[in-house]
Amino acid sequence: MQELVLGIDVGGTNTKFGLVNKQGEIIAEGSCKTKGYPVFKDYLSHLMLNVEEARAKLPEHKLMGVGVGAPNGNYYRGTIEEATNLEWKGTVYFTEQLKDYFADMPIILTNDANAAAIGEMTFGSAKGMKDFIVFTLGTGLGSGIVANGEVIYGADGFAGEIGHTLVNVFGRTCGCGRKGCLETYVSATGIKRTVYKLLADYMCDSELRGVSFNDLSGHMITEAALRGDFIAQQAFEYTGRVFGMKLADTVVHFSPEAIFLFGGLVNAGDHLLKPAKYHMEDNMLRNFKGKVKLLVSGLQNKNAAVLGASSLAWKELAKN
Amino acid sequence: MQELVLGIDVGGTNTKFGLVNKQGEIIAEGSCKTKGYPVFKDYLSHLMLNVEEARAKLPEHKLMGVGVGAPNGNYYRGTIEEATNLEWKGTVYFTEQLKDYFADMPIILTNDANAAAIGEMTFGSAKGMKDFIVFTLGTGLGSGIVANGEVIYGADGFAGEIGHTLVNVFGRTCGCGRKGCLETYVSATGIKRTVYKLLADYMCDSELRGVSFNDLSGHMITEAALRGDFIAQQAFEYTGRVFGMKLADTVVHFSPEAIFLFGGLVNAGDHLLKPAKYHMEDNMLRNFKGKVKLLVSGLQNKNAAVLGASSLAWKELAKN
Repeated sequence: MQELVLGIDVGGTNTKFGLVNKQGEIIAEGSCKTKGYPVFKDYLSHLMLNVEEARAKLPEHKLMGVGVGAPNGNYYRGTIEEATNLEWKGTVYFTEQLKDYFADMPIILTNDANAAAIGEMTFGSAKGMKDFIVFTLGTGLGSGIVANGEVIYGADGFAGEIGHTLVNVFGRTCGCGRKGCLETYVSATGIKRTVYKLLADYMCDSELRGVSFNDLSGHMITEAALRGDFIAQQAFEYTGRVFGMKLADTVVHFSPEAIFLFGGLVNAGDHLLKPAKYHMEDNMLRNFKGKVKLLVSGLQNKNAAVLGASSLAWKELAKN
Repeated sequence: MQELVLGIDVGGTNTKFGLVNKQGEIIAEGSCKTKGYPVFKDYLSHLMLNVEEARAKLPEHKLMGVGVGAPNGNYYRGTIEEATNLEWKGTVYFTEQLKDYFADMPIILTNDANAAAIGEMTFGSAKGMKDFIVFTLGTGLGSGIVANGEVIYGADGFAGEIGHTLVNVFGRTCGCGRKGCLETYVSATGIKRTVYKLLADYMCDSELRGVSFNDLSGHMITEAALRGDFIAQQAFEYTGRVFGMKLADTVVHFSPEAIFLFGGLVNAGDHLLKPAKYHMEDNMLRNFKGKVKLLVSGLQNKNAAVLGASSLAWKELAKN
């Protein structure tokens, strides 16, 4: 009988889930809306109907555990707390309420970037590594940090918010209420802002001049850069420079073996990686120069969020 | 028969050592010069003569292990590598050569700030804490980081160099060859530079106007601040502001339970702690506000370097 775990990725708009075996193969998957359920219990009950439907179609199997990746997820408490991009305000006791559905098995929750890090370690390119960092470049910038083989959760479970370190004290306003955070530059939203800055700075043609701020997406900028659009390429250069300078600081904190990048913007390839590498090395403290690998995630363009969430459960099961 | 470990603190000018029991009491101590021995073996043999002399005076005891704190110490390799303030160039195989003197016992080496962190955890105010950071404010700025109950050494053993993170891209030149590193502001050398900047900016009287740059010390600035000297107090205010802003960034990486400060400058008390706390909180990401304690090290004004070094050995012995 096949052993499976349930991996749940709670996104701002949709929730995806998968039933995943120990080898990281998604045997069945599904999704439902996250938005549109002001009451958390209603959302959970709908999600669980979908999960039951998917399980019913599978041959006989044994469910071993559940892993959840969620914005503002707290590993210690199994909660989602003060997530600005979800409808549920305050603290959502996610794992506690999941117990009504899944008794007698581990249920683990953490934030999406930490789940990505554990996914990278379990199913991706960080197998066997004890010290590495995963950056997820989505709407915001997430980071999952592994040191001594363990994810750093910190005293209150919210460690690893490198997206909210300072780049420029007089810089861009951030959703967190402060100014100049890394994610206001390095994220899909950040590069949008950079494109608009460059469209103001330069006079040259660009296919992006016809697109409104609201319509512009990280995907469009990536495609434009790959097609040779100067503004889009310069936006990646700018993003890579800011990112690379910050990575030099990240390295002196953790001395990672590798840094993995994940997310849509990473599909721009060298347009992002080359300036990021260059400026990381250029700003690096001498004894770290040339030592740290900057790599694309081994889960890039896979269903990494679901794999990451499921790896949480597999990791927990491996402890016992 | 009393069980003791030998703790060795290798400083740029002097080396101190102590024979320390499990309770953190220094039963015997001594010191010798670090400078003046171009050949490492000569230094070591002189140091060991001093240790033997100290041991000979003690009642019967059993030596259980040796711990060494040293600048640019590498935990994994037991080496001192490329230390700019020591006479020995390249890589010094410290623990390997110590084995000639101490067979069949653990010999552990790490850098001084990591030793301070383990000392804080073993004999100081971080007992029972799993996530905390120690900053040592000396000539430079060292940091020892503990997450999940373990010191972060990183892939190559040199993690925890927060003194070399960026504060100001157009800032002060640093001994490391780059610009704007935290330790060019927050350290004994950093506050000296700040005093000189303020003596240039302001016209007011100050007892420090009669002191040359070469003669000025962190101790003199601390004493002047405690006596009410405006320039000295402003220098601490400036140092605390820069430090506090950076601490807000440190917190989002690690989510520590507490941050401990150690070193001569910390004797200025609230002149340093108040602005550091204020600006840490003022720049903190919302979900960390009010959660992180900023404290004076529990080993402040004790022989912390020797206690830290000895705690390395006790910690290793506890593993077995």
